[in-house]
Amino acid sequence: MRAVVAERGVLEVRDQDEPRPEAGEVLIEVRACGICGSDLHTLQHAPEVGRLGEVLGTTGFDPDRPYVMGHEFCGEVVDLGPGVEGSGVAPGDLVVSMPFLVRPDAFVPLGFVNDLPGGYAERMVLSAGLCLQVPNGLDHRRAALTEPMAVALHAVNRSGIRAGESAVIVGCGPVGLALIPWLRNLGVGPIVAADLAPGRRAKAESMGADVVVDPRAESVIDAWRRADGARDLVIFEAVGTPGMIDQVVAAAPARARLLIAGVCMPPDTFRPFIAIVKELSMQFVYCYDGDEFAHTLHAIAEGIVAVDPLITGIVGLDGVPDAFVALGSPDAHVKIVVEPGADPAIVAP
Amino acid sequence: MRAVVAERGVLEVRDQDEPRPEAGEVLIEVRACGICGSDLHTLQHAPEVGRLGEVLGTTGFDPDRPYVMGHEFCGEVVDLGPGVEGSGVAPGDLVVSMPFLVRPDAFVPLGFVNDLPGGYAERMVLSAGLCLQVPNGLDHRRAALTEPMAVALHAVNRSGIRAGESAVIVGCGPVGLALIPWLRNLGVGPIVAADLAPGRRAKAESMGADVVVDPRAESVIDAWRRADGARDLVIFEAVGTPGMIDQVVAAAPARARLLIAGVCMPPDTFRPFIAIVKELSMQFVYCYDGDEFAHTLHAIAEGIVAVDPLITGIVGLDGVPDAFVALGSPDAHVKIVVEPGADPAIVAP
Repeated sequence: MRAVVAERGVLEVRDQDEPRPEAGEVLIEVRACGICGSDLHTLQHAPEVGRLGEVLGTTGFDPDRPYVMGHEFCGEVVDLGPGVEGSGVAPGDLVVSMPFLVRPDAFVPLGFVNDLPGGYAERMVLSAGLCLQVPNGLDHRRAALTEPMAVALHAVNRSGIRAGESAVIVGCGPVGLALIPWLRNLGVGPIVAADLAPGRRAKAESMGADVVVDPRAESVIDAWRRADGARDLVIFEAVGTPGMIDQVVAAAPARARLLIAGVCMPPDTFRPFIAIVKELSMQFVYCYDGDEFAHTLHAIAEGIVAVDPLITGIVGLDGVPDAFVALGSPDAHVKIVVEPGADPAIVAP
Repeated sequence: MRAVVAERGVLEVRDQDEPRPEAGEVLIEVRACGICGSDLHTLQHAPEVGRLGEVLGTTGFDPDRPYVMGHEFCGEVVDLGPGVEGSGVAPGDLVVSMPFLVRPDAFVPLGFVNDLPGGYAERMVLSAGLCLQVPNGLDHRRAALTEPMAVALHAVNRSGIRAGESAVIVGCGPVGLALIPWLRNLGVGPIVAADLAPGRRAKAESMGADVVVDPRAESVIDAWRRADGARDLVIFEAVGTPGMIDQVVAAAPARARLLIAGVCMPPDTFRPFIAIVKELSMQFVYCYDGDEFAHTLHAIAEGIVAVDPLITGIVGLDGVPDAFVALGSPDAHVKIVVEPGADPAIVAP
């Protein structure tokens, strides 16, 4: 089959062996797979990601060997491994899954291992027990947004934010934008969102932000003070570049809660004394749990959270290398979804 | 009057003008004043502390001019400013106060300003409205421990720790040790405390730690796993030197809550990605509120928290420079209390 292979910082479409479902697994034909910012980071910094994996005790990722990324996928079941028949997953089903494969001897983070493909491929294998049927006639593109929307839901949940409190979102990339509908549904307001890119600020407005701000023109905290300045505040850091935590600490009002949703992989420096005097708190978050993932799928299918503004481009497997380049310019795209058979040129959804 | 004056990194006992109580203020004769680690830091890094003050918008501290430190004081009222008579504070009263003076035009952090003395002096002025009568026949030495014990109570309160949860304390200086009786009273256990100095580990045991550990021999988290390893955990970082936050982040189990009680004044570097994958939280704390301060005084007076092991030395004003040197060696002392008229040699309490 064809897959987008990453090797030594370069993406290339190659022919690969077909993955074969083992006991308790299914083979899916990938219908859609979103490109995530962490894939861009991994491509550029694979050795560092590999070292972090060693620190964390994860296995299965050797940055010097080829690997196929893609962990925001939706696909159609086309084959069943031993023991799956009659278990509720059948050929023809449209499914999503958390990007993990559970094997007797390993817990496999799909999209970040060498020996099994992620979603930038024609086919991949999933644990049947983790497959969720896509409900309510939801199409595969929106269903593929389950994973990033679940990341945002988890961040909102772990922040402890409640109706009547206010939110500042620093950075309107996919995660920052995905926070907005969850916060609105919860009764949080005002929601003040900041991004350098005008296109992303416009997206934040279309997702439901009350105030958007260019941080070069006005600090996001000043904008929050104008809009409210009184309610308890959670600041969602959704940029993840070095120095952002310190910037947010320096700008935050006293006793603000910081939710660190941006994934800063290198070591980072900040001024603890500023955080101390303001009595700030920082909650760091990662992923989601199974309930949050399943709830997200249904919330998208039922229109409880709108995801359409997030999808800005569709591309075939052959266009993925160009899509990675396009995603490097923050104003051009938010989320590009790979449909393996689509045209190599990025087109509007 | 005589006072220990800090100037350009050097302490010297000098004659000073008598402070005069303004309207709503009282003059006290200092009976006892504890030496705090932040005073040692301020003496060594006054320009940096001054710059942080500018960042924070505080005023009244010019590191290039002389100042008198001391913010853990207890004293006897000897004179009243205008309007205080009949207000409930009278000459002869033994009082403590939060180390702030409230003036119509300023909020003065006593012990960290140039124009009013802190507690390393024969006399100082306080806001009458902030004075608390020392109850229950409590002596001035133990009463002077109100301030550092209130810092610890506030840290425990802000951590959100509850009965049935467990605690790790990193660093058994005055703040780390002061946490222990509050945690015990709350029903927290096991309490596992780590310090490099054997004398401080012994103090931690006498304050009520369940397990003490030399971090060179065993990691404190391993010791916690041996002792418990199951209950929800709050890790109290009470060292405050650069690099400690990263060490604690690297050692913490997933979903641990970090309470940053150590005051790290320089910029500090840590690895956010480790905190992210473990979903750690960090609560930074500073000071206490008035209720916590008053409650602490009464808890000491009623024997609810024992403070005796904290006091390891008594010294007169002339011995304060030597006491600062002695406190630089962590195994020699925990808390040295200044009694202005006492001998210049440090003696056991």
